[in-house]
Amino acid sequence: MKTYLDCLPCFMQQALKAGRIATDDDKKIRTLMDSIGTMIKDIPMENTPPETGEIIYRKIREITGITDPYKKIKEDNIKETLALYPELKDIVRKSDNKLLTAIRIAIAGNVIDLGVNKDFNIVKDVQKILKQDFAIFDFDAFVVELERAESILYLGDNAGESVFDKILIEEMNKPVTYVVREIPVINDAVMEDAVASGLNDVAEIISSGTTAPGTILRLCNNDFLERFAKADIVISKGQGNYEGLSSVDRSVFFLLKAKCHIIANDLKVKENDIILKGINLNV
Amino acid sequence: MKTYLDCLPCFMQQALKAGRIATDDDKKIRTLMDSIGTMIKDIPMENTPPETGEIIYRKIREITGITDPYKKIKEDNIKETLALYPELKDIVRKSDNKLLTAIRIAIAGNVIDLGVNKDFNIVKDVQKILKQDFAIFDFDAFVVELERAESILYLGDNAGESVFDKILIEEMNKPVTYVVREIPVINDAVMEDAVASGLNDVAEIISSGTTAPGTILRLCNNDFLERFAKADIVISKGQGNYEGLSSVDRSVFFLLKAKCHIIANDLKVKENDIILKGINLNV
Repeated sequence: MKTYLDCLPCFMQQALKAGRIATDDDKKIRTLMDSIGTMIKDIPMENTPPETGEIIYRKIREITGITDPYKKIKEDNIKETLALYPELKDIVRKSDNKLLTAIRIAIAGNVIDLGVNKDFNIVKDVQKILKQDFAIFDFDAFVVELERAESILYLGDNAGESVFDKILIEEMNKPVTYVVREIPVINDAVMEDAVASGLNDVAEIISSGTTAPGTILRLCNNDFLERFAKADIVISKGQGNYEGLSSVDRSVFFLLKAKCHIIANDLKVKENDIILKGINLNV
Repeated sequence: MKTYLDCLPCFMQQALKAGRIATDDDKKIRTLMDSIGTMIKDIPMENTPPETGEIIYRKIREITGITDPYKKIKEDNIKETLALYPELKDIVRKSDNKLLTAIRIAIAGNVIDLGVNKDFNIVKDVQKILKQDFAIFDFDAFVVELERAESILYLGDNAGESVFDKILIEEMNKPVTYVVREIPVINDAVMEDAVASGLNDVAEIISSGTTAPGTILRLCNNDFLERFAKADIVISKGQGNYEGLSSVDRSVFFLLKAKCHIIANDLKVKENDIILKGINLNV
């Protein structure tokens, strides 16, 4: 997804929010804002928003000296979602369509996104999303592809959401590689978050090599790129991965909640809609 | 009121909104955004936000070549509020406290503010504000000062709101000078808007000389500054005038609805609270 004009003020807003998580020092935050403001003119509209996100969060690290401002928040979110895990498993077990319920739960986990909105209520959102209609629903194609798949590459998004991903991975019952970011960026899951979420019990965990809050192929390492090319199914979680991969030339299933009106417009859906969207499908 | 960190992304947001009102040309809007972004580093936190607003709207004029992007919107708002005028007069006539009701109506008119929010419903807002409790309510002091005043300087804000101001001016029944901006900035009232609102029937209309979306004394002309110093009462409408004058050293009564959370915090009230606040009072 390209950068829209609306993304430009949003970059400033995100820098302010993340700067405040990283430090209480208003002078440092002001330096950060000045730096992002000056950078606005250098952002090509052809770039995807997470490419700019990568620069913003790099500047936050440089200016505040804090490499993982969301560390405590991520730990808390993982702890909170792990406590919900048995209950969520029970919901799947009792449901008529276990795979679809697990997909809904994985999307509900996507609400744990501090880049866009730090106020959320996980339990409330799960209950809502379990009943919500999909705005884009390529479920039948997903079932067909899943049936014949021998390898799944699962692109994770936020820490905490990762626990919800585990439930979908268990339900798919296929060999899964779970992909995390190379370094901490916003509250996106890195290796230790995926391990703390229990994903090593159900998947191989690798880093894509990206330092952006989304999968930007030109920033990814060769190991990831090879796996991305070869995987029978790629499942992409969340907005950042959608923004990075929406124009890619292989088949991808995007699972997300459209939490930003610009992404919603890009997908031709409404804000807060939930999406299971397949691109470049062979079915 | 000083500039808060939160104002910085908001300047970008306001530039985008106003740029889109002025032109459909995304390239010009992008040039505007780049220009405002680059300027962020030069904004002193000690400046009041309308001082930056002045620069933003100047850049919009320079880049788009449009000197009054809100002209049609202002005309529509004045037309719509003039149609409400008889009904509003009737509400005042039938009320127990005519002066207070006229104050409430004048505040309700303050919802016509396109700098902050272009979606509003005037009738709905009037009905709500007629019943709403004031978060700051220096009404008794206002009545005392009004009783002994021989001259009132009334600082207008938005076009359309100006029609609501007329109702309060009629109810005060004292010699009033109504003050408008020197040139069009957002949808703030200029001379022709005040005349179109019928204010010349009830007040002398002057320009403060300011080209900012708020009363910035250093940008005002000498005639205004003299009147500002001498007036028995100064009534200041809206957020922009509050931001410009909140630290001034003479008595001022601020009438506004706190539509922005930063201004609400500055006033120690909640967003959407209504305010009649006197500063530097002698009573």
